[in-house]
Amino acid sequence: MQAPNSTAAHFRSLHDPAQPLALSNAWDVASAIVAERAGARAVATTSAGIAWSLGSQDGDKLDRDRAIAAIASIAAAVSVPVTADIEGGFAEAPGGIDRSITSVIEAGAVGVNIEDGTVPPDIFAERIAAARAAADRAGSELFINARTDVFWQTSSQPGAQAGSKQAGNQEGERLEAALERAAAYLAAGADGIFVPGASSPATVAALVAGIAAPVNILVGPGRPTVGALRELGVARVSLGSEVVRAAYAVAQRATQELLTGGTYGSLDGAFAYGELNGMLAPRSAE
Amino acid sequence: MQAPNSTAAHFRSLHDPAQPLALSNAWDVASAIVAERAGARAVATTSAGIAWSLGSQDGDKLDRDRAIAAIASIAAAVSVPVTADIEGGFAEAPGGIDRSITSVIEAGAVGVNIEDGTVPPDIFAERIAAARAAADRAGSELFINARTDVFWQTSSQPGAQAGSKQAGNQEGERLEAALERAAAYLAAGADGIFVPGASSPATVAALVAGIAAPVNILVGPGRPTVGALRELGVARVSLGSEVVRAAYAVAQRATQELLTGGTYGSLDGAFAYGELNGMLAPRSAE
Repeated sequence: MQAPNSTAAHFRSLHDPAQPLALSNAWDVASAIVAERAGARAVATTSAGIAWSLGSQDGDKLDRDRAIAAIASIAAAVSVPVTADIEGGFAEAPGGIDRSITSVIEAGAVGVNIEDGTVPPDIFAERIAAARAAADRAGSELFINARTDVFWQTSSQPGAQAGSKQAGNQEGERLEAALERAAAYLAAGADGIFVPGASSPATVAALVAGIAAPVNILVGPGRPTVGALRELGVARVSLGSEVVRAAYAVAQRATQELLTGGTYGSLDGAFAYGELNGMLAPRSAE
Repeated sequence: MQAPNSTAAHFRSLHDPAQPLALSNAWDVASAIVAERAGARAVATTSAGIAWSLGSQDGDKLDRDRAIAAIASIAAAVSVPVTADIEGGFAEAPGGIDRSITSVIEAGAVGVNIEDGTVPPDIFAERIAAARAAADRAGSELFINARTDVFWQTSSQPGAQAGSKQAGNQEGERLEAALERAAAYLAAGADGIFVPGASSPATVAALVAGIAAPVNILVGPGRPTVGALRELGVARVSLGSEVVRAAYAVAQRATQELLTGGTYGSLDGAFAYGELNGMLAPRSAE
C-alpha cells in the first residue's frame, strides 16, 4: 500500500548531517521489526540479504516479483519509513524501471537505492530520470538514493579492498568519477548519493564538499564511526549486507560448535522465544 | 520435487544413538545452505523461524502455502536430507493433514515434525495415522517425528521453565504422560518421538528406556551437551528456534550499537560478502 507523502517527507527530513540517518539494513520481516524496536528511525532493505534469504545470489538474480513481495511484507510490518534497495532497478530499459518504481511505491516504500554497477553513467542517468518520472506519475515524493559503485569497480565483490600500488592515484580518479556521476544523477532527479567503498576521511570530506545533496556512506567493522562521519558532514550511513552476513555467521558457528564440541556457547545472547515471538504480534493487536 | 526413498532411508539411518543426529535448524534458504556447508548431515527447519522471517507469529499462524513454499525452496537448495517442522500439521481435520503431508513430500522433505500442543493425545494419534496414510499413498518412506509438548504444558511459551514448588512430582507426571503419548503415537505410525522441555539426565534416560524408537531432545545454552545425551541413548538432538533467535539478536545488538555508540563491534565475525554470496551460487554451476 502506497505510503502517504507525509511519510516520504519525514524520511527526507531524516537526511540531516547534524544527526545522520543511521540504517541497520533488514532482509526479512523479523529483522526489520527488530531494527525498528531497537530504535531505528527508518528501515532500509539489503537486496543482497533478501536475495540470499530467498535462495538467490546478489546482483539482479532474484526476480522482481519476489523482491517486491519481500519489500511489501517489510513495509506492512513496521511503522517507520522504509527505503528499498532495488539493485540496478530490476530492469534495463526505462519501461522496466518504470514498473519497478511503481511496484516499490505500491509496496509502501518511500525511498529507493538504485545502483549504477557497471552501467555507463549516461545510461544510468536515464534510468534515474525514468525512476523520477515514475514516482511523479504515482504522486510519490520518493527519495531516490543513487548509488555509484566507482569505488568498487576493480573488484567483482563489494567490500573488497583495492590493494593497488597506485592506491593514492586510484582514489583520486575514483573521487573525480564519483563527483561527476553524482552531479549527473542529481541533475536527472536523484535526491541523495550513496558512495560505498569510500571511507577515508579525506575522500568522504571531498564527497560531501562536492555533492550538493545528502551523502550516504557504507559503514561497518574497520570503518569510521558514525560520529566521525557526522563531523565530515555525512547525512546518512548504512550497514548494508554486514548485518545479515553477521546473522548467518551465527548459524555457521552454532552448527560447527554443535557438530564438533556438542556445545552451544555461540548461541549465548539469543532472544528469548517469547520476546521475539511477541514482536511479531499483529500490529492491530498492540 | 519428491525426494527418492533412498534419501528417506539415509535420513532414517542417521537416527543412530551411537552418533546422534545433530540438527542446527534453518529458517530460510541461506541458513540451510550455511548449515549444510558447516557439516550438517541433514537440514531441519524451524517453523518458528520461518514464520518470523515471513512476518507471522509462531504457532499455526502462517498459512500452509507460504510455509510449504519456504520448505520447498530450502529442499531445492541443499543436497542433504530435509526434515520439515510443520507445527500441528497446518490443519485440524485428517483431510487437512493429508494435504499438508502430500505437499511437504512434494516439496522435497523426507521427514516431518508434527506437534500435539494442546490437542488431546487420542485426536493427535488420529492425525499421525492420517499423516502415515498420506505418506504411504505418496509412496514416501517419510520419517514422522511426533512431538509431544507435555513438558511445556504449564506455559504458553516453549522454552519457559516450570518453576513449580512441586517440580519433582510434576516432572514425574510429565514423564508418565510423555511415555503414554509416545506409545500411542508410535502405534499410530510415528517413527520417532521429540520431547522438547525434557533435559534432566534422569528424565532423558527414562524417555530413552521407555520409548521403542529414536528419541529427539531439544538442546541449547544451559542444556546437556550432545556427548552427554549420547551417553543417555538419545538418537537426535536439535537446536530448534535457538539459532534464528541468536541470528536476530545480532541484528538487535548491531542496531543498538550503531544508534548509540556509532560503532560496529557486534558485527565482528560476519561472513565476507564473497564467501556468503558464493555459497548461494546455483548448484548446477558448482
